[in-house]
Amino acid sequence: MNLTDQLREYYVREFPAEAARVVERGGPLPDGLDQLSPESYTRLLEYADPGQLNALFLALEPAQRSRVLQLASIRTALLILRSLNADERESALADLPGGLRNEYSELLEFPERTAGRYMDRLRARYLPDQTVGEALAELRQSKIKRVRSLYVVSEQDELEGRVDLQDMALAEPETPMSDLLHPVQAVAYLNSTEEDLVKLFDDSRSDSIPVVDQAGKLLGVIRYTNLFQAAEEAATAGIQRMVGASADERALSPALFAVKRRLVWLHINLLTAFLAAAVVGLFESTIAQFTALAILLPVVAGQSGNAGSQALAVTMRGLALKEVSTVQWRAVLSKELKIGIINGSALALTCGLGVWLWSQSPGLALVIAIAMVTAMIMAGIAGALVPMILSRLGQDPATASSIILTTVTDVAGFLAFLGTATGLSSLL
Amino acid sequence: MNLTDQLREYYVREFPAEAARVVERGGPLPDGLDQLSPESYTRLLEYADPGQLNALFLALEPAQRSRVLQLASIRTALLILRSLNADERESALADLPGGLRNEYSELLEFPERTAGRYMDRLRARYLPDQTVGEALAELRQSKIKRVRSLYVVSEQDELEGRVDLQDMALAEPETPMSDLLHPVQAVAYLNSTEEDLVKLFDDSRSDSIPVVDQAGKLLGVIRYTNLFQAAEEAATAGIQRMVGASADERALSPALFAVKRRLVWLHINLLTAFLAAAVVGLFESTIAQFTALAILLPVVAGQSGNAGSQALAVTMRGLALKEVSTVQWRAVLSKELKIGIINGSALALTCGLGVWLWSQSPGLALVIAIAMVTAMIMAGIAGALVPMILSRLGQDPATASSIILTTVTDVAGFLAFLGTATGLSSLL
Repeated sequence: MNLTDQLREYYVREFPAEAARVVERGGPLPDGLDQLSPESYTRLLEYADPGQLNALFLALEPAQRSRVLQLASIRTALLILRSLNADERESALADLPGGLRNEYSELLEFPERTAGRYMDRLRARYLPDQTVGEALAELRQSKIKRVRSLYVVSEQDELEGRVDLQDMALAEPETPMSDLLHPVQAVAYLNSTEEDLVKLFDDSRSDSIPVVDQAGKLLGVIRYTNLFQAAEEAATAGIQRMVGASADERALSPALFAVKRRLVWLHINLLTAFLAAAVVGLFESTIAQFTALAILLPVVAGQSGNAGSQALAVTMRGLALKEVSTVQWRAVLSKELKIGIINGSALALTCGLGVWLWSQSPGLALVIAIAMVTAMIMAGIAGALVPMILSRLGQDPATASSIILTTVTDVAGFLAFLGTATGLSSLL
Repeated sequence: MNLTDQLREYYVREFPAEAARVVERGGPLPDGLDQLSPESYTRLLEYADPGQLNALFLALEPAQRSRVLQLASIRTALLILRSLNADERESALADLPGGLRNEYSELLEFPERTAGRYMDRLRARYLPDQTVGEALAELRQSKIKRVRSLYVVSEQDELEGRVDLQDMALAEPETPMSDLLHPVQAVAYLNSTEEDLVKLFDDSRSDSIPVVDQAGKLLGVIRYTNLFQAAEEAATAGIQRMVGASADERALSPALFAVKRRLVWLHINLLTAFLAAAVVGLFESTIAQFTALAILLPVVAGQSGNAGSQALAVTMRGLALKEVSTVQWRAVLSKELKIGIINGSALALTCGLGVWLWSQSPGLALVIAIAMVTAMIMAGIAGALVPMILSRLGQDPATASSIILTTVTDVAGFLAFLGTATGLSSLL
């Protein structure tokens, strides 16, 4: 090995995350990457963008591929195997030692986004009457990386508790494991969904959760790092649900998948749009008399729609992050009411002046100013209450909230503007 | 201690997360909570809702308070101290032993949301020529909980590297620490912002990051669990930024704080609304002739606005989760184009039929159907491109994206509807 090779080897082994970022930006595979030892190449794969795993894996010789799959974490190995087409996957599995081949074939059978897919299988069994020294020796054998606690089982494989690695490090080697045993805070089942898991981790703040079968037998362990991506996805799902796109749609989902989920909400939106149109219809004669009203109509509705979305976004996020609860609806409402009055007055002034300049009609300016304050106050109220009420009804506060809100702000905007105009039509 | 007390004690100590949830739901403090040992009470505080820390802490006798502050993690102790008013804080600090008092007073000085605030101070120093056995003995003394790696410094306190606790557990006690040393993947500085930190953790996927000064001297360690909340906040900030509410606004921020940040964007929105109104103005004579157009105008614009928001939300989230990059803009655009054509056609049919029934005018129905397909296709294109372009320009793809999008979908909707109506006015 020459010096460049050694340096590359050292860099990738010790800074795999940074190496992965370099590979990500690089486009085609940087030169000499195939010179890396399987150990370092695997380190790189652990940190690589999942979208690049396929190309990075197939760039290897078949013999190296098998080695890499054996060295990789179960999560990364499964990501690689799933990225392959059926033939490639078949031959990759065939090259593995029997035990691992069976394990991966089984894991690939679990439905996507369930605990089975995220679980690291057990590589060793820890018993309560084992000594800490014996358990550490087993751990040394099992080659599991970065574990913080061990799960202890009975002779019948029933989960008995958790032992922290730190406690083990600090204990005398002869201490029995049972002396260090803590009860387990949360368990998952093979069919627990990704959503369940994210919630379990959120509530327990552990870095791992054991998976058991119905009889309480330990099957494997899910580590938080395996669920990192899923947790981020859950945190950002609201943004899609509020506009009637489902949480499971991805940026590159097939068009028909998206159509099926979005179209229902678009139809509901159409119904509410007709409702808003009916409100405009009530004032048909006023509009026929003053066409300028039709021109300015979208301004008031658009403005209250934006103000309402601001109130909605802040309230929804507050609920999601548990900064506020529905019990505090009065406090949130009073805040949005104040904002509506202040922002509404400010915009009424700007907008009134603008319309005065454009139309030379002080009457029209007055009408739009009054409508603006009214509509923006109603928008603030609606933005605060819609997620609160949805949440109180046991719904996700994001669900279709934007669609409901737009209906309210449109109707409020049209009513405020055309109603004021009709009332003050002598000034127009 | 009677049996009930013992049971309560055991339950809170071993299931602090669940106990905290019980306390959260309970409203007033459940009976007998003050009977808990300071150790268990502290465990409970570690998992309690930050909003409840103040009440839970003040429910204790002053003597117990001091004990709890000494037992608590630095993060929880600081959260408690910050929740107190100036007098209470003064007296709580005065009751602490001198070392801890100085440490906490100093930590309270750091600006909010910077690394200094999240950092656990060092309680022991680990040197490269120490043996593993000696380091474990120090660790035992330092009472730090749940640590996964130790940071090793030179005699001059310069950060030298990281040693995994697992490696230490598996090594012979006489091994020098320098044999187990790994380079550090990422470091933070005292003034690193919360945003920087979340990014460092995201990229390195470590569970802790060392904080150093400009000379490379180790000052402390930030653990991922301390940043849990901040990471979730970062993940959900987009929802606020897209509507022109800043990421730092909370559900219960003072109204004036919110006004200052939101009002700028509302004024920009007003400008764009006038732009859309000007488009309507171009067709004033057509509207004067057919008032029904004014009534239906919001339907087309509202519908394309909702469709555009769906495309926007899915694309933005995809970029945030790094599922797609701006390089793949063609794939995303082609997906949204297909969806626009399919959903647009479906809605054109429903909407056209609805308008035909309402107006008895097949001409008007045809006009709105054509406008609907056109506007929805343009909305899909805009929804996909706005975040892509913002991201390409080096901006956060969320920033004001909703405001930009609404402008596009309004103008597109008005142009499509009134333009088609003018072109086909002989059919109306």
